[in-house]
Amino acid sequence: MTNTKKNVYFFGKGKAEGDKDMKYILGGKGANLAEMTNLGIPVPAGFTISTEVCQYYYSNGKQYPAELKRDVEKEIARLEESTGKKFGDDENPLLVSVRSGAAASMPGMMDTILNLGLNEKVVEGMVRKTGNARFVWDSYRRFIQMYCNVVENMEHEKLEHVINTVKAEKGIKEDTAMTAEDWQKVVKGYKEIYKIEKGHDFPSDANVQLWGAIDAVFGSWNNPRAIIYRQLNKIDEKKIFGTAVNVQSMVFGNMGDDCGTGVAFTRNPSTGENIAYGEYLMNAQGEDVVAGIRTPKKLESLKEDNEVVYNELMAIFDKLEKHYKDMQDVEFTIENSKLFVLQTRNAKRTAPAMVKVAVDLVKEGMIDEKTALTRVEADKLDQLLHPALDPKEKSKFQLITKGLPASPGAASGQVVFNAETALEWVENGKKVILVRAETSPEDIAGMNVAAGILTARGGMTSHAAVVARGMGRCCVAGCESLTVMESSKLFKVGDIEVKEGDLITLDGTAGEVFLGKVPTMEAQLSDDFAQLMKWADETRKLEVRTNADTPKDAKTARGFGAQGIGLCRTEHMFFEEDKIFAIRQMIISDTVEQREAALAKIFPMQKNDFKQLFDIMKGLPVKIRLLDPPLHEFVPHEDKDIEALAKEMGISFEKLKEKVESLHEANPMMGHRGCRLGVTFPEINQMQVKAIMSAACELKKEQNAEIVPEIMIPLIADVEELKWLKAKLIPVIEETMKSYGVTLKYEIGTMIEIPRAAVTADEIGAEAEFFSFGTNDLTQMTYGFSRDDAGKFIKEYLAQKILVEDPFKSVDQKGVGKLMEMAVKLGRAGNPHLNIGICGEQGGDPDTVKFCHRIGLNYVSCSPYRVPIARLAAAQAVVESSK
Amino acid sequence: MTNTKKNVYFFGKGKAEGDKDMKYILGGKGANLAEMTNLGIPVPAGFTISTEVCQYYYSNGKQYPAELKRDVEKEIARLEESTGKKFGDDENPLLVSVRSGAAASMPGMMDTILNLGLNEKVVEGMVRKTGNARFVWDSYRRFIQMYCNVVENMEHEKLEHVINTVKAEKGIKEDTAMTAEDWQKVVKGYKEIYKIEKGHDFPSDANVQLWGAIDAVFGSWNNPRAIIYRQLNKIDEKKIFGTAVNVQSMVFGNMGDDCGTGVAFTRNPSTGENIAYGEYLMNAQGEDVVAGIRTPKKLESLKEDNEVVYNELMAIFDKLEKHYKDMQDVEFTIENSKLFVLQTRNAKRTAPAMVKVAVDLVKEGMIDEKTALTRVEADKLDQLLHPALDPKEKSKFQLITKGLPASPGAASGQVVFNAETALEWVENGKKVILVRAETSPEDIAGMNVAAGILTARGGMTSHAAVVARGMGRCCVAGCESLTVMESSKLFKVGDIEVKEGDLITLDGTAGEVFLGKVPTMEAQLSDDFAQLMKWADETRKLEVRTNADTPKDAKTARGFGAQGIGLCRTEHMFFEEDKIFAIRQMIISDTVEQREAALAKIFPMQKNDFKQLFDIMKGLPVKIRLLDPPLHEFVPHEDKDIEALAKEMGISFEKLKEKVESLHEANPMMGHRGCRLGVTFPEINQMQVKAIMSAACELKKEQNAEIVPEIMIPLIADVEELKWLKAKLIPVIEETMKSYGVTLKYEIGTMIEIPRAAVTADEIGAEAEFFSFGTNDLTQMTYGFSRDDAGKFIKEYLAQKILVEDPFKSVDQKGVGKLMEMAVKLGRAGNPHLNIGICGEQGGDPDTVKFCHRIGLNYVSCSPYRVPIARLAAAQAVVESSK
Repeated sequence: MTNTKKNVYFFGKGKAEGDKDMKYILGGKGANLAEMTNLGIPVPAGFTISTEVCQYYYSNGKQYPAELKRDVEKEIARLEESTGKKFGDDENPLLVSVRSGAAASMPGMMDTILNLGLNEKVVEGMVRKTGNARFVWDSYRRFIQMYCNVVENMEHEKLEHVINTVKAEKGIKEDTAMTAEDWQKVVKGYKEIYKIEKGHDFPSDANVQLWGAIDAVFGSWNNPRAIIYRQLNKIDEKKIFGTAVNVQSMVFGNMGDDCGTGVAFTRNPSTGENIAYGEYLMNAQGEDVVAGIRTPKKLESLKEDNEVVYNELMAIFDKLEKHYKDMQDVEFTIENSKLFVLQTRNAKRTAPAMVKVAVDLVKEGMIDEKTALTRVEADKLDQLLHPALDPKEKSKFQLITKGLPASPGAASGQVVFNAETALEWVENGKKVILVRAETSPEDIAGMNVAAGILTARGGMTSHAAVVARGMGRCCVAGCESLTVMESSKLFKVGDIEVKEGDLITLDGTAGEVFLGKVPTMEAQLSDDFAQLMKWADETRKLEVRTNADTPKDAKTARGFGAQGIGLCRTEHMFFEEDKIFAIRQMIISDTVEQREAALAKIFPMQKNDFKQLFDIMKGLPVKIRLLDPPLHEFVPHEDKDIEALAKEMGISFEKLKEKVESLHEANPMMGHRGCRLGVTFPEINQMQVKAIMSAACELKKEQNAEIVPEIMIPLIADVEELKWLKAKLIPVIEETMKSYGVTLKYEIGTMIEIPRAAVTADEIGAEAEFFSFGTNDLTQMTYGFSRDDAGKFIKEYLAQKILVEDPFKSVDQKGVGKLMEMAVKLGRAGNPHLNIGICGEQGGDPDTVKFCHRIGLNYVSCSPYRVPIARLAAAQAVVESSK
Repeated sequence: MTNTKKNVYFFGKGKAEGDKDMKYILGGKGANLAEMTNLGIPVPAGFTISTEVCQYYYSNGKQYPAELKRDVEKEIARLEESTGKKFGDDENPLLVSVRSGAAASMPGMMDTILNLGLNEKVVEGMVRKTGNARFVWDSYRRFIQMYCNVVENMEHEKLEHVINTVKAEKGIKEDTAMTAEDWQKVVKGYKEIYKIEKGHDFPSDANVQLWGAIDAVFGSWNNPRAIIYRQLNKIDEKKIFGTAVNVQSMVFGNMGDDCGTGVAFTRNPSTGENIAYGEYLMNAQGEDVVAGIRTPKKLESLKEDNEVVYNELMAIFDKLEKHYKDMQDVEFTIENSKLFVLQTRNAKRTAPAMVKVAVDLVKEGMIDEKTALTRVEADKLDQLLHPALDPKEKSKFQLITKGLPASPGAASGQVVFNAETALEWVENGKKVILVRAETSPEDIAGMNVAAGILTARGGMTSHAAVVARGMGRCCVAGCESLTVMESSKLFKVGDIEVKEGDLITLDGTAGEVFLGKVPTMEAQLSDDFAQLMKWADETRKLEVRTNADTPKDAKTARGFGAQGIGLCRTEHMFFEEDKIFAIRQMIISDTVEQREAALAKIFPMQKNDFKQLFDIMKGLPVKIRLLDPPLHEFVPHEDKDIEALAKEMGISFEKLKEKVESLHEANPMMGHRGCRLGVTFPEINQMQVKAIMSAACELKKEQNAEIVPEIMIPLIADVEELKWLKAKLIPVIEETMKSYGVTLKYEIGTMIEIPRAAVTADEIGAEAEFFSFGTNDLTQMTYGFSRDDAGKFIKEYLAQKILVEDPFKSVDQKGVGKLMEMAVKLGRAGNPHLNIGICGEQGGDPDTVKFCHRIGLNYVSCSPYRVPIARLAAAQAVVESSK
């Protein structure tokens, strides 16, 4: 069979068949190589096998289109013509690199094979040609090493052992001390191992090597690591499928001292400062810089090493930024003082850098404000908002070492030495710091769950640093004084030994490592942040409220710009020591009278709770949910605790035990809770409503403060529940206002968190002043997934790709979202003035915020620290939907 | 304010303002009184205050329309003119009865006040006029008694005490021995009590009396008993609201020996035989017959007592049946040999009578077949299908007494003596027989939960008999040898004492009472039943299948006409002794290999289970659901049971305990079950599928029997689950067929029982060959009601009218049904050939069957004994929708 689409795209000699807008076909790397070629930037010539070939490959039982072989031959010929070299030729060999590249950056796939095309004969020819035997043999052993590793999937240790043997024989330690002969010995050793492992000789035919590499790139699309990365980063395979293969003529940074290789950002990716920032190594090949084996030099030094090249590079940076209108992340190689650019892409950056770069680019006139809003990943703002180490406290702790400030923020946790342990401990509720000599793609899952990452080797562009910044995880990298002994589960800094489980604190902004848990303080927000939020507020349509049960949360949220409280869960207040006793008295009551007596004790405390919240939120609406959880959550369940409580309450153990047992439910999530409690014990809700209204009336009288209490009834499944409760509550409200001689505007509305409420929302809407989607419960019921129990199988579902995402993190738009859309339409049909919001935990998730905007909600409510995220996401929703 | 509608409707002198089609306005009783008047049947003149007045009354704070007083005065005047008597007049007094009457028959509301208009002066006048002082004083005391009782809500005992005192003074026991003077003393006593209780004299003004009675009738609409009755009988207050008040001139059956009163059915309400059936008492007033105080005479005797009247009555019966085209239930009174009809209505009847009357009316040419289908309440067929007492076994038990065969069927249970105990015991899972001296409307809730009812007093038309027949509850009434001592919680028959909690058996068809639990045998179905079912099968569109897990159920269902199995729950098979051990071994397996070894042991047993079912259902489809419940249902949870099992399994207690604990879930109903088990342990489903296909293949080879196995995957929430499982199961299916060298048609489909499945049914439909609504789970999730826990608050919800009906009994059409409709539409959009059915327990509920017809399902599946019910309901759905 043949592919109906163009398989291969050439670039070279200032002209390319593709461009930057073709990233779905050429991958990000391929599209940018084509674009740079067209821009006249020096890019080694090459060609890209498209992602459509990859799609063909996977939908045709891992077969290539019949014509691909011929297409590749043709492009190799073009490449030979373009470079004047010949593939597989002894005298004037064309060597190539083979790299993967999908539409989205995707660490975990096969990365790079360099120097492909080498064999014993070509090596001889090249030695003759370059006169640099050491360089050629080193290049050959690198090629074999990479090929064994990524194409043949052989264990790294086996090859490493060959090098170590050669070094031991000679008594040397450093690679730099190896001679041409030494590398030749290594090559020999590699080939012997290869033959034992694979049963045949290492391929010497350049074409065999090339197809082996192409197979490996396409195969690597479904590497477990690549799959995990796609899951973690919510990459939808229906939109982005497959990798391209970039075959490019080699340039060498390791051919001598006028050669080098580097990685650089056009601005500082950590702070966003508009100063090019990068690292390079002279006489080195690409991987050496990022692998963290040698510590690289700072970009500034290049000015001294080779000013011409440095200036040329700066000019290219400028050109690229103006062209791409964003900060770039560039790989370059210098071959005999000639500069080549091997890659450019929009740079990953920290949250502070996102904000600063976005605002600066507007100031520089490169982008407009709306575009700036889309340049900041809303989710990442989290990093800016959370507390940093308290400088006054810091000095009281032992600073054990300093490394590179690779990813900002502060994190304390228990030390672990590998990803598996990290995953396991975090699952058991611990906070961990992952400590590695250096990280590799295998560590990604562990890095994702760790509170922070600490490495002994590698620079600011090392794997650990790049990935940690991408994840917004705090990271200190390249702490050279650190010795990591994974097998003994400890690390050493001088005399200090830190063992698995010990507590340490990282300051990713300063690059510092402390023993123990250092207290934190509130984050200081930049002017750029304020500017961005201002633009967001001017743009967004959704109101942003907060979920807050305590004065502290309410204050924090108001500071972050919350426009009121969207959910105050009254039950959390009940757990405070002074209230829980009265609550329990209420629960064990046998009669309405006993219950009312207990409630009368709770009333002044509840009133005071609400008064504090109203005071903080003066002028803004406050939505209070009436008691929701089943009563058994307030009583102990173990015999010894029941005994203690019985004593405290002055009743018999048997009576209390019987009461506790009578409250037991098989499926409490679908049991006697929410408004169902209100129907069976209306006096509870009546007390709460009286407390709410009394608080509001007192504040009105004392401060003349405008309060709009919004009373929210949870777990409504049928409009009759709402009608019944309103009939019980409204008289209490009216009576309370009358007793204070105050008239207030108040609202009564419902949570929409039961599927039946969504499908009968027209009836409920007609009786309610507002709806608030409780997407936690709605997700539970819609999926039939108990949140407490689903962990087990959701993990399996994600692994098996049955679920693309955990529906408790981001609203499932196809199912839960469809019910929400129904509820919005029906609800507004029943009541055109209905105010509709969301207060489930997903309310602070950017995708969910955008969905809420699209289906016409009035507001979202989320936890205090997510308020700015929701503000930005709401603005992005407007920008995106105007496209 | 005034009512815009006509308030009052007159009937009398052969002409009425209403007719039988106005029952929503006049109530059933009033409409039929008007109709009979128009038919020329002798009905005492009167008028009806409409149900619209009742609606006005309740929607205007219990105020009447301003003009009502005048309207009633006008009608009283018409009545005076029509009868030639005068309301409140001493000499020629007009006395009236006041009765309630809603559009639907509704015991529990205020029933009747007779002789209204009497006072001391009128009494004197009437004595002068009739010369029958005893009759007049007896009538007066009856009036006061009824008035105190139903208008003033005074305790019956207080008045009873007055009569008992008078009797004791004279040393008499029977009412019949009371003289005029005795009754006069009783009247005096009543009035004294009235004055003490109410603080004023008993009203002597006829108009005051009348308005007191009208108030009481309207007020009785919201009696707790009336409310419970409406709930039990699913009377929708949106359709039927309010009672009418019938005010009718009195005729007297107690004026002498040429007077009498009776209740009769135009056919036998117990068997349906076309012979008039009834009871009467000479010289008695209305209530005497049904109250069960004197045992009445059989209707046939009236021929001897007064042949003219008897023939006249038979002619009226004939006229009424031809007019109403149905069996009638008639009340009549004979006043000085003149016959009056006081009420007619379509007669309540037993299930056998429903069937026989319906089929006979077709034969008699009165109705057509389609109408006949609507004349049988599908739900009541239950009574015909369930086992009767085994005659061979009966003789081995002690027959302790015989009574009237008031409601057919057989029932065993523990004796209880009041409704409260009945409710409590049934809630605790017991079966009870409610034993009462006589029943009253207060007992309705208890009668509803009892397996059978036994009374000492009352005839075939007594309260107990009528209500029991209506409910299809087995009843033996009027066991005169029985002495019920409620306070001592026992009853006596001669020397035999039966205490609360003792087991007895009733044979309602024979009127027999046995000590102990008599075994039962299969019911014998009549030819009329077969005829009716034939008409039903010719009419219905829905296929009717059965839910059956065992060969016994499958056989029963096929005998009842099931067209295949709609749900076979495989897990029930697992609990059999020989399987549970292997199941447990599978559960405690640590590896796939161990699990597969345990499954291999289960495989031949499962195959054999399926083979038996396929054999019974040869030629019909069989739908098998793969394992559904969470695994913890198969392991013990108490330490001592775990210990025993650990020993049996040869593992440590700790290991087993740990395993059991690891299976614990907070909300198992939404936990790791259904297809989620299939995803985590695919080998379980693979074994099941292999067993299904092997059984089908073997049967095909051995008997060349056509089997269409339908494999049903439970708890699907997302199409990806289905795709994933199909990919695991289809290879096993194909392989199994190949190994037998057999090719079979098979289907794979899903349960739709999770709300998300309903809203994404287009995607799921595209991957499924059938859908089966699991309405138990779908109701749980849609309402967020855990079936195990909701009992508590659903009861409260029904009492508070928040729910009209328990959604687990009949599908909630507004919510759950809306999701079902969506799923049908979306599913067929995804796959036009989708076969759709229901297999939740509601599948045998007639309302649900009709709903399923309306939304276009292909079949319903229900428990074996409900198959004929579903067949009939499906036919009724067609007849109803063609209207």
